[in-house]
Amino acid sequence: MIDTKDMMIIDALELSNWDRDFVLMLQKGGVTCVHACCGLWENARETLSKVAGWHRFFEEHQDLVMPVKTGEDIETAKAVGKLGIILGAQNTSALEDELGLVSVFNELGVKIMQLTYNNQNLIGSSCYEEVDPGLSRYGKNVIREMNRVGMVIDLSHVGTKTSLDTLALSSRPVAITHANPDWIYPTKRNKSAEVLAALRENKGVLGVCAYPHLINGASTTLEEFCDMISQTVEFMGVDHVGIGTDLTHNMSVDFLAWMRMGRWTHEIDYGAGSKSSPGWPEWPAWFQTPVDFPNIAQGLAARGMTYDEVSKIMGGNWYRFFSEGFKAEKELEKCVSLT
Amino acid sequence: MIDTKDMMIIDALELSNWDRDFVLMLQKGGVTCVHACCGLWENARETLSKVAGWHRFFEEHQDLVMPVKTGEDIETAKAVGKLGIILGAQNTSALEDELGLVSVFNELGVKIMQLTYNNQNLIGSSCYEEVDPGLSRYGKNVIREMNRVGMVIDLSHVGTKTSLDTLALSSRPVAITHANPDWIYPTKRNKSAEVLAALRENKGVLGVCAYPHLINGASTTLEEFCDMISQTVEFMGVDHVGIGTDLTHNMSVDFLAWMRMGRWTHEIDYGAGSKSSPGWPEWPAWFQTPVDFPNIAQGLAARGMTYDEVSKIMGGNWYRFFSEGFKAEKELEKCVSLT
Repeated sequence: MIDTKDMMIIDALELSNWDRDFVLMLQKGGVTCVHACCGLWENARETLSKVAGWHRFFEEHQDLVMPVKTGEDIETAKAVGKLGIILGAQNTSALEDELGLVSVFNELGVKIMQLTYNNQNLIGSSCYEEVDPGLSRYGKNVIREMNRVGMVIDLSHVGTKTSLDTLALSSRPVAITHANPDWIYPTKRNKSAEVLAALRENKGVLGVCAYPHLINGASTTLEEFCDMISQTVEFMGVDHVGIGTDLTHNMSVDFLAWMRMGRWTHEIDYGAGSKSSPGWPEWPAWFQTPVDFPNIAQGLAARGMTYDEVSKIMGGNWYRFFSEGFKAEKELEKCVSLT
Repeated sequence: MIDTKDMMIIDALELSNWDRDFVLMLQKGGVTCVHACCGLWENARETLSKVAGWHRFFEEHQDLVMPVKTGEDIETAKAVGKLGIILGAQNTSALEDELGLVSVFNELGVKIMQLTYNNQNLIGSSCYEEVDPGLSRYGKNVIREMNRVGMVIDLSHVGTKTSLDTLALSSRPVAITHANPDWIYPTKRNKSAEVLAALRENKGVLGVCAYPHLINGASTTLEEFCDMISQTVEFMGVDHVGIGTDLTHNMSVDFLAWMRMGRWTHEIDYGAGSKSSPGWPEWPAWFQTPVDFPNIAQGLAARGMTYDEVSKIMGGNWYRFFSEGFKAEKELEKCVSLT
């Protein structure tokens, strides 16, 4: 049995119904830090309300949680035994058409933004659109501005062309917080070897994802999941793979409809689901709640990985990536000139 | 001649057209820190754009200016010879009806909010309304929340009843950043002895104001202005008087219309002006631009004040007040428990 006590376990995306019980489960699972989704289709004004809601959550549960805006915050969370929470949005809808809002939401601690959710937007296009024209003119400006202020670019739901454009343009490493290689689990949401090779070149990190629709459903075994991780590590290198479960604990069916259909359609859209599996999916037996995080570490160890390798995948890589990625470009230059 | 070089000169309100030349004038005048108005009638979304504009200003002129969110930032500004800029709003319109936005705008560095501008709003009422019913139910919650997060309450344009209600309710000192005693210059915008006595009791600070409509116009002499300060100090105590010029350098007539009429009227409203003096007022000869700040210090010294007294009025009092006032309640408790 591998001991996960001293590991920094970081989950690079959860979309769960946050309450005190959920935090306690994460802590029981040994999790140090979670990237929590605080926006899908929300505009700037609506995102302020989401951030305000998080302020309240941080205040009401300050004995258990703390906001994370820097790598040092993650260290502090680990040291004091609190759960660190990184706010992020799975869309750039909060920016509307205003480049200046990148630094504004960055100041509010929205430290990660996925360029597109499931649809084409002002910046680029998604993996579900028929044609992805790549980064728009505004999109290119947003990439440069995110690079400048230290807001992490996430490509998880983003289309191939927009992803490749971003990986070519970004001066800094990029994240795919929650997706898998599509040659192992072929779905639109998973990533091609071309995109993952470009991510590897960019020194980015891929968060392998346990969302049932992105693997083989609830029947996927721990061994199969860890085998996928192992193959991904072979392709990406052990420093460029982390975990992004996409856990959707205790979420309502209403939220599912909002998540998939926002305000953009009056027809049913199944997102990563399908007509035959329209609801929230069942999760595998070995990952029912965040209490089960150590199972993944055990599975990786059972597959022959060393403590260091498991530790990197369970959170060490994300810790390194976020510590750098959340810094403003100016701070990075300072660090370089000091060394 | 009194030497103002080592003084921390702080102007508790300016509503000027900020550009590089204006900053250079402030620095020539020896100013360390200015509270800059970044909102009058703007709602939450619009205020984000204003904040974004300030982010750009800070970036483009980073060799000259820096944002101020804490007392330590003011010290740093003085130490490195930059102009510190505190963002604030002359209204609570940015909060709309959402209590949670207090901490959100506080996080964005909007560290001062005037409860009302010239009209009744969701929180209370202004000095220009016929009836001021005092703080609303929402208003009381906002006061408590501002106290909690360390956002300074400003009562400059606020009506008497709302001001007295606030001074009774606030657990922390309150600011009147720009107004004068109304028994010296009788206008609706200046403050009664009752309000100023309550402010003194509250350990707040009053910024005496050079806006021509709040004194005797451009013909007011430096001696008269300093005589007013002296009388104000006699009433408030030397620790509770500062400067808040309300300087409106280089502002357009269009902005004047926006300032006075916002979107709330289609008729002309003269604000602190009048039908016979509808435009931007002429400023006194001794305060034409911020280069003239030292004139006020000279005038106070000429009136017999000591270096320490002049230093407190020119900025020392605001420095102390803001250093405390910008702290979250939690940080204050920490300071107390450390001493």
